[in-house]
Amino acid sequence: MYALVIYDVSSNEKRYNLANHLKTKGLTRIQRSAFIGRILPSTLLDVERAIPKLIDESIDVVHVFQLYDTAIQRLKVFGKPLAEITVEHGVMVVT
Amino acid sequence: MYALVIYDVSSNEKRYNLANHLKTKGLTRIQRSAFIGRILPSTLLDVERAIPKLIDESIDVVHVFQLYDTAIQRLKVFGKPLAEITVEHGVMVVT
Repeated sequence: MYALVIYDVSSNEKRYNLANHLKTKGLTRIQRSAFIGRILPSTLLDVERAIPKLIDESIDVVHVFQLYDTAIQRLKVFGKPLAEITVEHGVMVVT
Repeated sequence: MYALVIYDVSSNEKRYNLANHLKTKGLTRIQRSAFIGRILPSTLLDVERAIPKLIDESIDVVHVFQLYDTAIQRLKVFGKPLAEITVEHGVMVVT
């Protein structure tokens, strides 16, 4: 399973802390406010529990998608992503 | 099938034109730079052909994900999305 986390967070500090949290959970940044990565269900639960404490829910928004190999294989990317991801033999490869 | 389109586009004009294009193709804005919606394969092809003309591929980035009902049903949203989406009997409902 993969998680795609996208967000609009106003405060620079909160945005930095959220990005840091997602990095420590093993997700890869593909756009300024978008992280993706293979993730264990238990780790995803940790992320989902942390998000409300990291953002201001009255003004910010975070979407957490659960994706599978096909979604990554069919992903189309235009322009310059911060990282390129592919799936080879069930493993997400970041280049 | 659903398309999730997320992007980092620097120019305000290009960003406006891309957002407008995605709206005209029936996608719903859920975050500042994220649109989602049920889409026909032929319409998604239109979108994918238009994107390179709408952005500066040397600096901008667009990710186009193809999703299915389960990804929408398992979507977790925190905070204040620009629109809330659910799937009821295979139909995407926007509130």
